Amino acid sequence: MMQIQLSPDLKLSRIVQGHWRLADWKLSNQQLLKLTEQAIELGVTSFDHADIYGNYSCESLFGESLSLKPSLRNEIQIISKCGIKLKSDKFPERKLKTYDYSYEHIVDSVENSLKNLKTNYLDLLLLHRPSPFFNAEEVARAFSDLKRRGQVLNFGVSNFNSQQFEMLNSYTVERLVTNQVEVSPYCLDHFENGNLDFFLKERVKPMAWSPLAGGRLLNPQTEKGQKIFKVLVEIADELELQHIDQVIYAWLLKHPVGMLPIIGTSKIERVKTAVDALVIEMSHEQWFRIYEATGVNMP
Amino acid sequence: MMQIQLSPDLKLSRIVQGHWRLADWKLSNQQLLKLTEQAIELGVTSFDHADIYGNYSCESLFGESLSLKPSLRNEIQIISKCGIKLKSDKFPERKLKTYDYSYEHIVDSVENSLKNLKTNYLDLLLLHRPSPFFNAEEVARAFSDLKRRGQVLNFGVSNFNSQQFEMLNSYTVERLVTNQVEVSPYCLDHFENGNLDFFLKERVKPMAWSPLAGGRLLNPQTEKGQKIFKVLVEIADELELQHIDQVIYAWLLKHPVGMLPIIGTSKIERVKTAVDALVIEMSHEQWFRIYEATGVNMP
Amino acid sequence: MMQIQLSPDLKLSRIVQGHWRLADWKLSNQQLLKLTEQAIELGVTSFDHADIYGNYSCESLFGESLSLKPSLRNEIQIISKCGIKLKSDKFPERKLKTYDYSYEHIVDSVENSLKNLKTNYLDLLLLHRPSPFFNAEEVARAFSDLKRRGQVLNFGVSNFNSQQFEMLNSYTVERLVTNQVEVSPYCLDHFENGNLDFFLKERVKPMAWSPLAGGRLLNPQTEKGQKIFKVLVEIADELELQHIDQVIYAWLLKHPVGMLPIIGTSKIERVKTAVDALVIEMSHEQWFRIYEATGVNMP
Repeated sequence: MMQIQLSPDLKLSRIVQGHWRLADWKLSNQQLLKLTEQAIELGVTSFDHADIYGNYSCESLFGESLSLKPSLRNEIQIISKCGIKLKSDKFPERKLKTYDYSYEHIVDSVENSLKNLKTNYLDLLLLHRPSPFFNAEEVARAFSDLKRRGQVLNFGVSNFNSQQFEMLNSYTVERLVTNQVEVSPYCLDHFENGNLDFFLKERVKPMAWSPLAGGRLLNPQTEKGQKIFKVLVEIADELELQHIDQVIYAWLLKHPVGMLPIIGTSKIERVKTAVDALVIEMSHEQWFRIYEATGVNMP
Repeated sequence: MMQIQLSPDLKLSRIVQGHWRLADWKLSNQQLLKLTEQAIELGVTSFDHADIYGNYSCESLFGESLSLKPSLRNEIQIISKCGIKLKSDKFPERKLKTYDYSYEHIVDSVENSLKNLKTNYLDLLLLHRPSPFFNAEEVARAFSDLKRRGQVLNFGVSNFNSQQFEMLNSYTVERLVTNQVEVSPYCLDHFENGNLDFFLKERVKPMAWSPLAGGRLLNPQTEKGQKIFKVLVEIADELELQHIDQVIYAWLLKHPVGMLPIIGTSKIERVKTAVDALVIEMSHEQWFRIYEATGVNMP
Repeated sequence: MMQIQLSPDLKLSRIVQGHWRLADWKLSNQQLLKLTEQAIELGVTSFDHADIYGNYSCESLFGESLSLKPSLRNEIQIISKCGIKLKSDKFPERKLKTYDYSYEHIVDSVENSLKNLKTNYLDLLLLHRPSPFFNAEEVARAFSDLKRRGQVLNFGVSNFNSQQFEMLNSYTVERLVTNQVEVSPYCLDHFENGNLDFFLKERVKPMAWSPLAGGRLLNPQTEKGQKIFKVLVEIADELELQHIDQVIYAWLLKHPVGMLPIIGTSKIERVKTAVDALVIEMSHEQWFRIYEATGVNMP
């Protein structure tokens, strides 16, 4: 599979497996190991995590499974995130959800992620969300220390806008290598807020979360959803594809910005469906038919 | 007439004649030639086109007329645009309107424009509208090849926002020399979206399309329009002007950003009206009375 | 008190006394002098003015009072502003409120401020509001001349957005040292429009006007106001503070951007209340409880 070079020492697979819902999959360690190995065989070598996924449980599940075959660690890239403090039964002292990018919280969070994932390094650490309270100097210091100790090899952000990205980039010694944002025909926010233009300008390749809009594109419940669905079905038919999720992936992959879609499935067939989308040749007009079906203005 | 230097080798007349509606004017080649010569005599030497104007017919009409007196070519500057693919009886295979900034489309479109305009170069090529699907590397390559072959001397954009402009500028070897945007007392979008501030920062002089708001300023149909009209009439009176379009032109011309208004008229008297606006001295307070009449907030 | 270095030759006190409503305070020259001396004793050495405050009267009131003890001038920093032309009985010829950043108006306005304040220099001059009609070259020329003559030592802006700030900064020889903007739990505009991110990126420390939202935070009249008030009271209780305005000041002062709150009170006890807020240690979670109480989305 095509790999995307995000920095001199970081290549991710173009399709990334997301473990957001790993806890819901109810896999045994052995089953998860098998899924991981099959994904790797298909070329999907990058795995996306966050400290908070599954109420702080998903990293551990993956770590337990990995520990059955430690040699896999060198074949994969692990991404995790920090910075959101959820209200949770695991932290009964918290009164509300906050974002915390203090030096201590970043470093503690990474050390915890490493313990859970049973690894001694993250290939990529992302700040999970922008915060109204953001001490960029502390963040830069935490990044430097984590890098120096070999605990994190590369750094990026998630859900940041262009001003937040530029701001943080002006403090950190190492350049931010990506921004993980929501993109799908259902969510065009980053087409509209200037982020895609910014990524092109900065030569930053974004990761795209929720490319299937959490299932809403495949099971549309609204008029807008049905309009998009109709076009997706038409184009699947024209391209002789069995799965409309392939049309969605092809739509994302064709975009010149070079997105890395994050899939999130426990079914290896659906991983394969996504991987097969890499060779689909969607026409320019087909791309715009999907774009127009979202209801955007085309002056 | 004052000329505006947009690049080392491009000067446009401060007032630009627009051929958006040239097909509607129903002029013979001879009549159009006469109009063109009279405009040039008044100092209006720049002519604004696009491939798509008049359902892909206006460039040809101007080219036919120009061919009656080829020596005029050296006295004028021709601007054209590319990138919108209209649904049109001339392209029955198109299912919907799209924007196309592929290398092939840009180059083909320019070659077609040159053929229609019966010239071997454009003084200025503009990308007509920003696109959600934009391959800046291909655009930069197309610009370089068109420049090297002498087919296009200068490049710019139209209707871009500041992030799109900066992004493309980071790819092209030659700096973008202008951005053609809609500006009138009816359309203050570029006052509000930061583009005017950006033009000042970048020392880019914009071209202003639809300065009379397509006639809505002269024949107001809404309460807002009538409020603006009333102030325009008052100020025409104070300045002893016969035509309120002169008040509008003076309002645009007085702005420090240095706009080049695009007029679009088949009547040489109205070209003269616009040219005469160049010497009107509108007061600071008159400028703000028009601005305030648009209903904007003045905190 | 902590002082904030805004430029190599400008330090302001972290808490700034604002004279917006000085005319309403109805103080004798002697009373105002006493208030000023008491504020200085508390470390509040910076005083914020504008030509237009109190219908063009506040600068004179302060100047009269200062002239009772001219030696105070060296102990304080005077900030004033220019650029708004109010409709006023003092200028009966004005038909409407405008913004004027012409060379002449800036220079005249400063000379008038100096005369009113009975001083021969301003420590800091701010452009009061952005203007849709802005000749940055003239502004830069005025700044240079005022600086060269020693009439103004430092320059900044007020209520500008990031694009306006960058634009002006690209013209002026001297860097703009601050941007005075409205910030309070009631007004989060600059959290949302990217300005706080921009300040962090540019290492610009903003001044915060109306930190108590003109009293609306202390005397809430709306449901939103009451929700914020409730949290402020809770936190005052937790921190054992007598005044909830201290909670608000602590909330502003804790933010990493390094804001300088402008208070505006004729009562020295309330100046002291603000100064005492400098040593309050508000927790991270308390900060977010106030932020969340404003009703913003926390995804």
